[in-house]
Amino acid sequence: MNENNIIGATYATSEGKSFSAINPSTGLMLEGNFRVANTAQVEEALMLAESAFTAYKNVDKASKAKFLRTIAEEITALGETLVNRAVSESGLPVGRLQGEVGRTVGQLNLFAKLVEEGSWVNAIIDHALPERQPLPRPDIRRMLIPIGPVVVFGASNFPLAFSVAGGDTASALASGCPVIVKAHPAHLGTSALVAGAIVQAVAKCGMPKGVFSMLYDDGYTIGEQLVKHPFTQAVAFTGSFRGGMALMKMAQEREKPIPVFAEMGSINPIIFLPQAIATKAEELAHKYAASITLGAGQFCTNPGLLLAIESPELDKFKETLANAISAIPSATMLTSGIYQNYNTLSEEVSQVKGIKWLAQANAINGDLQNQSVAKVAVVSGADFLANPKLHEEIFGPYSLLVVAENSSQLQDIIQTIGGQLTVTVMSENQEIANYPALVSKLSEKTGRLILNGVPTGVEVCAAMQHGGPFPATSDSRFTSVGSTAIYRFVRPIAFQDWDDSLLPDELKQGNPLGIFRLIDQTYTKD
Amino acid sequence: MNENNIIGATYATSEGKSFSAINPSTGLMLEGNFRVANTAQVEEALMLAESAFTAYKNVDKASKAKFLRTIAEEITALGETLVNRAVSESGLPVGRLQGEVGRTVGQLNLFAKLVEEGSWVNAIIDHALPERQPLPRPDIRRMLIPIGPVVVFGASNFPLAFSVAGGDTASALASGCPVIVKAHPAHLGTSALVAGAIVQAVAKCGMPKGVFSMLYDDGYTIGEQLVKHPFTQAVAFTGSFRGGMALMKMAQEREKPIPVFAEMGSINPIIFLPQAIATKAEELAHKYAASITLGAGQFCTNPGLLLAIESPELDKFKETLANAISAIPSATMLTSGIYQNYNTLSEEVSQVKGIKWLAQANAINGDLQNQSVAKVAVVSGADFLANPKLHEEIFGPYSLLVVAENSSQLQDIIQTIGGQLTVTVMSENQEIANYPALVSKLSEKTGRLILNGVPTGVEVCAAMQHGGPFPATSDSRFTSVGSTAIYRFVRPIAFQDWDDSLLPDELKQGNPLGIFRLIDQTYTKD
Repeated sequence: MNENNIIGATYATSEGKSFSAINPSTGLMLEGNFRVANTAQVEEALMLAESAFTAYKNVDKASKAKFLRTIAEEITALGETLVNRAVSESGLPVGRLQGEVGRTVGQLNLFAKLVEEGSWVNAIIDHALPERQPLPRPDIRRMLIPIGPVVVFGASNFPLAFSVAGGDTASALASGCPVIVKAHPAHLGTSALVAGAIVQAVAKCGMPKGVFSMLYDDGYTIGEQLVKHPFTQAVAFTGSFRGGMALMKMAQEREKPIPVFAEMGSINPIIFLPQAIATKAEELAHKYAASITLGAGQFCTNPGLLLAIESPELDKFKETLANAISAIPSATMLTSGIYQNYNTLSEEVSQVKGIKWLAQANAINGDLQNQSVAKVAVVSGADFLANPKLHEEIFGPYSLLVVAENSSQLQDIIQTIGGQLTVTVMSENQEIANYPALVSKLSEKTGRLILNGVPTGVEVCAAMQHGGPFPATSDSRFTSVGSTAIYRFVRPIAFQDWDDSLLPDELKQGNPLGIFRLIDQTYTKD
Repeated sequence: MNENNIIGATYATSEGKSFSAINPSTGLMLEGNFRVANTAQVEEALMLAESAFTAYKNVDKASKAKFLRTIAEEITALGETLVNRAVSESGLPVGRLQGEVGRTVGQLNLFAKLVEEGSWVNAIIDHALPERQPLPRPDIRRMLIPIGPVVVFGASNFPLAFSVAGGDTASALASGCPVIVKAHPAHLGTSALVAGAIVQAVAKCGMPKGVFSMLYDDGYTIGEQLVKHPFTQAVAFTGSFRGGMALMKMAQEREKPIPVFAEMGSINPIIFLPQAIATKAEELAHKYAASITLGAGQFCTNPGLLLAIESPELDKFKETLANAISAIPSATMLTSGIYQNYNTLSEEVSQVKGIKWLAQANAINGDLQNQSVAKVAVVSGADFLANPKLHEEIFGPYSLLVVAENSSQLQDIIQTIGGQLTVTVMSENQEIANYPALVSKLSEKTGRLILNGVPTGVEVCAAMQHGGPFPATSDSRFTSVGSTAIYRFVRPIAFQDWDDSLLPDELKQGNPLGIFRLIDQTYTKD
């Protein structure tokens, strides 16, 4: 493991201040002295990225696909070394991290396939109409092109799938944009190992070196410089609301504003319709006790708000949920900061008028540090409506059950909640067909609407939308998961009256790439 | 012509301050006392829009298409009344405004056809894989949905095609979003007539009334209130850099930031390659003299920057251009403000070091007011590089010829220019094939790249991209002209594991709308 900053797929020489990763389970420092990057290195990384962009954007689709697949192979080749390091840096279990390696590799291969197939550029051709009156129509051909260097911030809660070679990097590289990663300080070694895999892939595939850089920092200076650099064209971030808003502000205050794709979290409401509670209170309680506490609740899709209408059967749900939550073992959180924040916020919320604890798990694993305890609170619909504080996310194994008096109050509650990554409805058979206004309103609040499932678990596919109205994300029109995540890093260009030989292959008359195109209003591969 | 504000397709009762339109050719006040809107009317318009949204977003595609076509028919029915009023308010010639009526009607019909066909929602279906290991895949279906009330600012330079029922309104209504128009104060009567056509169409088609409102203001208060209102979900604007930036700032400082699609102008560089100048200097000079002065130069795609390499043949081009420009008759500008601004800026630029006038037309039409005179200045490449002021747009019949020493300096110049709506290359035969780096760099600077044409004239079709990197527009990922303009007002939503009967028709298994969809990675109408 090389602990130096990576500037244009090349390791910088060791110099200056260094810092280390901490094992959150033990509180002890882990092996490796990672170098804090400096201003000159930011400058060099962006200079190299800008110059690599000219070459990389024109790399043919087969070579780009091979590059993405080679990154995937190099990551796979890291095997247990990578998983073990990620376990020690994140406190997450081995099985989860093995799964996350699979997901990361899967995402890279998904984008490789997308690029290789090629239709994602949305080519549109409107042929010339030289005879048209009163004026002839020119030949116009449009496609998507990459926008330039992208800065990716690694996320704490997915040290692989949303970090150095995660969905942001994979989609940016697939689009034809160079990437500069700001490594997350909570998983420095994991970042170094994955970045090493990308460095290998750059060399093996003969890619321009500036296509990838990664910088370490124990503070915010380097991140700020990266976002403000004039060569940076977009920023991808998954993390807190405060962090996302700070990046948006920086990006908007630049001389040339740039887009920030910040996924800032969500309370992911679950609406339990009455018959669902009436017929399977216990099953639902167990299902949600598991979803709320999965991975110590450290998912942006964690169900933080349970909405139901009061009824005798709801008491059964509450009792079962309380018992199930009480039995959940404590778990190490990702960092001591996240752990402390969880305790502070869940303590603060318990002071709000009308809030009662429905259940708190018993702390076990006493030898380990940063162990969070699952908690579920309960509050009346009226008190929830009166306290905006209760609408805020508490990152961790926490959820709030809101008991509405009736379906009208439930609608009022839904009206007040902010934008969400997900909203879930639990409904028995066709019960939901009686609530068309509810479903219509819910669709305005969220990026993903789930029926009878749990929001944790975000499928990586073309139809996925992982992004919702503000404040869930900075821009509800884009997703950070799934193949359409590539559309964050491109823009359209139209070529008017160009000779066929001078056009990009995607727009040539003969369709040499064999892609789907919209030609004179019809989709075709001709 | 009813001169009252329109709140939810209903005319408000006359009260409060009123103002009138001015004929820029005569400086005289035109018929009609238009009422300045007030805060309560803004509030009511947005309340009605928000409540109409719930119904309008679910209107079936045939009814929505009929609504758009009916607006087009009602506008057509206004006939000469509309054209004459637009002539008297804009100073533009009859033929131009007849053409603009045609374009406006054509745009409405284009969006009607798009909505009726229905594939624009980009439906994507990934079927469930219940047997998948280690976890089953849920059924996920995604489509685009409208975002809510849109505020449209009418533009001065296209009193029909970029105003009350222009491309912004047509695309927003097509997407399923209600529209609130802030009427442009320079064409109040034109706005009232067109808005009347929309009011008629709302009634004839039985649309929810809140789907359309229009407010008048002689200042900035109403516009600001509209942008800041919490129900407003997006803003569309075509106008000055200052105006666009002010709206962006307001929109970003809201509690919930919203997108602003501001098209803020451009200098639309024309690059004359050496052989083109060598072989057809005179033809090019005439072509560009016409393009620079078309419509008194009041196009966002007006060619404001001509770039060439010095050569003996370039002198021929200069001489012909100078003669052609000198012979261009003066023309009335849209408003006295625009006229004064043109004179001030073109006077200021003439003070910049190294700037010389190549040609100034002789003022004629002395009886008419606000008559602009075409002007072309010339400067060396070195002086252009040294003076950022020369890179700014001067709205009107003005262009600057920059004479580069050699092709290397030409590249330097291109490197320094900002984002553009259009860039044009004039090249003889395959000459441009010798400049691959130039073309690659140009593609990073613009939304539309034209070969051997003029940038004035923006075709309304699916492949058009009218939008370029900042500062040409606030968001290079979207267009304000052509059918893909609809994508400004929508966002994706994913439905996970919903019963077929509860899904929107676009996503139902049987494809009842018969649209193109991406199903399990394949485009199909099945």
